[in-house]
Amino acid sequence: MLTLVDKDTICAPSTASGVGAIHVIRVSGEDALVITSKIFSKDLTKVNSHTAHFGLIKDSKGNVVDEVVITVFQEKKSYTGEHTTEIACHGSSFIKQEILKLLLANGCRMANPGEFTMRAYFNGRMDLSQAEAVADLIAADSRKSHEIAMNQMRGGYSDNIQHLRQRLMDFASLIELELDFSEEDVEFASRTELFDLIQELKDRLSVLVDSFAYGNAIKNGVNTVIAGRPNAGKSTLLNALLNEERAIVSNIPGTTRDTIEEKLQIDGILYNFIDTAGIREATDEIEKIGVERAISEVRRSDILLYVFDAKELTKEEVQEDLSKLERSGVSTILLANKAEGKAIDAYASYCENHPVLSISAKQHLGLNEIRAELAKCVENISTESDTIVVNARHYDAFSKALEDILKVEQALEMHIPGDLLAMDIRSAIRHLSSITGEISTDDLLGNIFMNFCVGK
Amino acid sequence: MLTLVDKDTICAPSTASGVGAIHVIRVSGEDALVITSKIFSKDLTKVNSHTAHFGLIKDSKGNVVDEVVITVFQEKKSYTGEHTTEIACHGSSFIKQEILKLLLANGCRMANPGEFTMRAYFNGRMDLSQAEAVADLIAADSRKSHEIAMNQMRGGYSDNIQHLRQRLMDFASLIELELDFSEEDVEFASRTELFDLIQELKDRLSVLVDSFAYGNAIKNGVNTVIAGRPNAGKSTLLNALLNEERAIVSNIPGTTRDTIEEKLQIDGILYNFIDTAGIREATDEIEKIGVERAISEVRRSDILLYVFDAKELTKEEVQEDLSKLERSGVSTILLANKAEGKAIDAYASYCENHPVLSISAKQHLGLNEIRAELAKCVENISTESDTIVVNARHYDAFSKALEDILKVEQALEMHIPGDLLAMDIRSAIRHLSSITGEISTDDLLGNIFMNFCVGK
Repeated sequence: MLTLVDKDTICAPSTASGVGAIHVIRVSGEDALVITSKIFSKDLTKVNSHTAHFGLIKDSKGNVVDEVVITVFQEKKSYTGEHTTEIACHGSSFIKQEILKLLLANGCRMANPGEFTMRAYFNGRMDLSQAEAVADLIAADSRKSHEIAMNQMRGGYSDNIQHLRQRLMDFASLIELELDFSEEDVEFASRTELFDLIQELKDRLSVLVDSFAYGNAIKNGVNTVIAGRPNAGKSTLLNALLNEERAIVSNIPGTTRDTIEEKLQIDGILYNFIDTAGIREATDEIEKIGVERAISEVRRSDILLYVFDAKELTKEEVQEDLSKLERSGVSTILLANKAEGKAIDAYASYCENHPVLSISAKQHLGLNEIRAELAKCVENISTESDTIVVNARHYDAFSKALEDILKVEQALEMHIPGDLLAMDIRSAIRHLSSITGEISTDDLLGNIFMNFCVGK
Repeated sequence: MLTLVDKDTICAPSTASGVGAIHVIRVSGEDALVITSKIFSKDLTKVNSHTAHFGLIKDSKGNVVDEVVITVFQEKKSYTGEHTTEIACHGSSFIKQEILKLLLANGCRMANPGEFTMRAYFNGRMDLSQAEAVADLIAADSRKSHEIAMNQMRGGYSDNIQHLRQRLMDFASLIELELDFSEEDVEFASRTELFDLIQELKDRLSVLVDSFAYGNAIKNGVNTVIAGRPNAGKSTLLNALLNEERAIVSNIPGTTRDTIEEKLQIDGILYNFIDTAGIREATDEIEKIGVERAISEVRRSDILLYVFDAKELTKEEVQEDLSKLERSGVSTILLANKAEGKAIDAYASYCENHPVLSISAKQHLGLNEIRAELAKCVENISTESDTIVVNARHYDAFSKALEDILKVEQALEMHIPGDLLAMDIRSAIRHLSSITGEISTDDLLGNIFMNFCVGK
């Protein structure tokens, strides 16, 4: 583990490159104050933490490189836990490079991606799941994903599982102690108390594991497929939604030529709208492909928006389409399009299991109702957990810990000997520890921090 | 003038948008500390200037928007001269926008481009020429242009002209006093001393006006045209220079299809290399156009690199080409290309007025010699002035002030009456004052600051 941290003083630009009024360069490490002082017009080694200093950066020949403001954070009080300086210079890439060159010449090395945060983790300023949340926070592009990342960064997991893990460790120690006295048949660890703890852990872990479906949808967008027959108004609907929101996040060319994906944020939730080709009555082989494709899109989705031409389709035809498309676990909303003027409950009888809305995509009628129904569907995916799992690594670890806990429960019920019990408990602890980073490997850490931006 | 400044508290992102570890949002104005405190977990109205504070930004519902560090600068000690806070948040555009929204909701308005610097000017933190240099500094992309902008930002002009202007104002007052006593024929202002001052000003202003040619070349790049017959190796030469430096600044499509411009920094100086179509012997009308075009490129250039095939062209042919291309004021360098193995002075006799270098563009021979000759040419454009004029507005004002000073000199020599003298002196003062902004108009200021980036 130690190969990833050294005593080097590191530096990197911490603000985006490009045109701006200022750039910030961050320096962290044992010698941060000494090195920064060498290129600055003021000695920063004796100043108080959290103070800002105006002065000149000069090169080795004494030429003024820039007038800057340097903020000093002393060790144990900084983001990384090490001595840190933040140099705010004018927003010129020339100046930024000159200052970085001077720092390198005076003993810094360039930081690797995420190295500041990795040091914060190694110096106990945050646990691993919090460090991972920093990257999620920076990448968050909707209110909800921001909220989840912020909760995690502020220690969401720790509150949830840290003390349960501690109690589990206490039990493991007691049970292992029993093994030393195995011939005497003593029970240091109360099986009743352990059983209660296991129940509590099972509940907590189940909720966390279940929250991943929601967390993943929030982080990557709620997959919402728009399906229906040709000319039902699917694309018009998509455009109406996009147009009204004026907030296209991006256009992603579909994986097939027939599929268009659009990301759209509605009320703080990110949706991936997938516009499928029209499904037809499969009279021949080629037309069957359209249906198959739409069905496979539905399969990987959270929500199905089924659009039909209210003037054309009968109740029976609608139900026939639905029977092909519907999948359990996928919330379905029926949209009776081109239904201008017709009462909203005219189509209610078309389907009893799902909401039916009467809309006009062309005239932008009924869009608010669609938004409200979408929000309800997301609530259905939602979870009772305050802490949402968005990270696949955490999901995996929580799932494995839950498996172990279920084994422990079973073992307790079957009065299995302490040594087997202890093994499963230790395994559960190991999985829980891997989340917050009490247990970690270089490979794992390398993978996690590699995806950070430089300067964080 | 006052319409441009108000008492509003302004805010803007000060770092480039895009992916980075942190964003910085700047708030400035009377209420900066009060407004920032409203959205922050700590009261900043009572803290010391130049201190940094870690805490939480919360929205009106109490949700945590971000963990941030806010640096406080109190009025008279800040960049703008007003109360200022700088909010360093996580580098997410979502968070940046949320914080800006909160600032706006609590009484800030968005800053206009350059408004922070404009306020610094209005609050006497810098003069107008210094404010303009801030924009130049941010845009500077070579060592030399950076050096000039830095010198100007640090008060280069003020040192140069401010006290001369003051002495001129003293004389103007004395001469105007004489006018009140005109019937008594007194001379409060010593004509000898005034004459000496005018001489000094004339010298200073001439040097400054002359420095513009250099300053402009440094700021926008030294225009260097590469001309010669087809297949002389012009493009190979350009590629060799670019390739060796590995520092292409940008590719600008030429204004004509036949012209390629490449920006390249050599030893801290930016060059615009213009690769012209080959000039031919103008046997017909169409081929004449090539020559005309090359000639017009030479006319707008500082340096002409004339390339010829040493194996093909005779001395007479070279001289014939030169007679078409040469222009006074344009430094010319002859490059005998494809001259592998042949002694460097073999072609010295080809031209007596300009240096002749023996090179091989293909084999990258003689490139260092070209660089050295280019540097010499730039020195020729160069100037004895410590302060270089790079700004066309300043050049115009200095030129007009110089005209006025010459009129004053003439008037003194001709013993013209004081009232006419005073008029020209006042005019010169007005032009000098416009540079540092003692005299300015809304239109002028609007123009200057419009080109700043937001947040500066």
